[in-house]
Amino acid sequence: MGTKVIAISREFGSGGRTIGKKVAEKLKIKCYDRELIQKLADESGFSKDYVAKQDDETPSYWYSPFIDDSILPNQEIIWNAQRNVILDLAHKESCVIVGRCADYFLKDKKDCYKIFIYADLEKRAKRVVEVYGENDENPEKRVKKKDKKRKAYHNYFTDNDWGDCNAYDICLNSGNLGIDRCVDLIVELYNS
Amino acid sequence: MGTKVIAISREFGSGGRTIGKKVAEKLKIKCYDRELIQKLADESGFSKDYVAKQDDETPSYWYSPFIDDSILPNQEIIWNAQRNVILDLAHKESCVIVGRCADYFLKDKKDCYKIFIYADLEKRAKRVVEVYGENDENPEKRVKKKDKKRKAYHNYFTDNDWGDCNAYDICLNSGNLGIDRCVDLIVELYNS
Repeated sequence: MGTKVIAISREFGSGGRTIGKKVAEKLKIKCYDRELIQKLADESGFSKDYVAKQDDETPSYWYSPFIDDSILPNQEIIWNAQRNVILDLAHKESCVIVGRCADYFLKDKKDCYKIFIYADLEKRAKRVVEVYGENDENPEKRVKKKDKKRKAYHNYFTDNDWGDCNAYDICLNSGNLGIDRCVDLIVELYNS
Repeated sequence: MGTKVIAISREFGSGGRTIGKKVAEKLKIKCYDRELIQKLADESGFSKDYVAKQDDETPSYWYSPFIDDSILPNQEIIWNAQRNVILDLAHKESCVIVGRCADYFLKDKKDCYKIFIYADLEKRAKRVVEVYGENDENPEKRVKKKDKKRKAYHNYFTDNDWGDCNAYDICLNSGNLGIDRCVDLIVELYNS
């Protein structure tokens, strides 16, 4: 039997990571999130710290007037490593993958559920302070900045529009539904 | 106990109406779709045919150079009737309401699930030919035109952006998930 994969994209502060972990626990499968970083480091040859910093970061030369048509080799190497690691994982085991453009790499995989988790800005700003323990003076600004980078990264490297529902099978408003209801709906989808 | 309402917005050809009807059957509640037209006619005083034509239609004077700041009285009367009928229904009985900006009118109602049903253009064009029996030479063009009008109507009369996931609790890709899975997820949501 083939594997089944849940690929979660999420707005910053929406609780997408928590949802992914809870779904994986309920389904007794693994959730790959930060765990991917070591694999990416091994695959790409870069250090774990360096790879971690590339997560959802806009390619830096975007702001350079000396831009050429090719992307920076380091970023290309990590992008390719990301594809290899994710395709390999999805081939080997049923799992949840949070972020890292897994929805894009797995867009043609049978039994891959592409999910987007979002919530309104106010609720996300509240969550990053209360749950993530961030202490920015202006958490709403921080949330918006992080999402802007995430969107830019995703849209640069893929031909999807991050956050546009057309790239996903299901989009869940965790701010309105709550974390546990999102978890239950994804579990229902996986088991259906 | 308060009522629970499912408000469905949908792209043309996505099967949103069929999903609404099937959800209502499973939950043994009513589905209001075309049934709303008679109620709107009674409430507004206009004929059923006239009201039906106003569904998802862009206000016609949009294209007029003689536009002023007020909307046409007829459209305003129907819009107000629409609000009254939908709020009244939602207050009286648990039900499914398809279209007619119910998601907007009921945005502050407790236990209202705002749902958007969408699918990729190719699948929707196929559906309008095979299921709805439409015979346009270019069904994709027809689908796009219908959606453009629907979006313009919604965005003109409300402060939501039609099809932007932020206006909804859950968005379902009926093209990828299939009609029955969408039905089951909505039923699960309603019962949770």
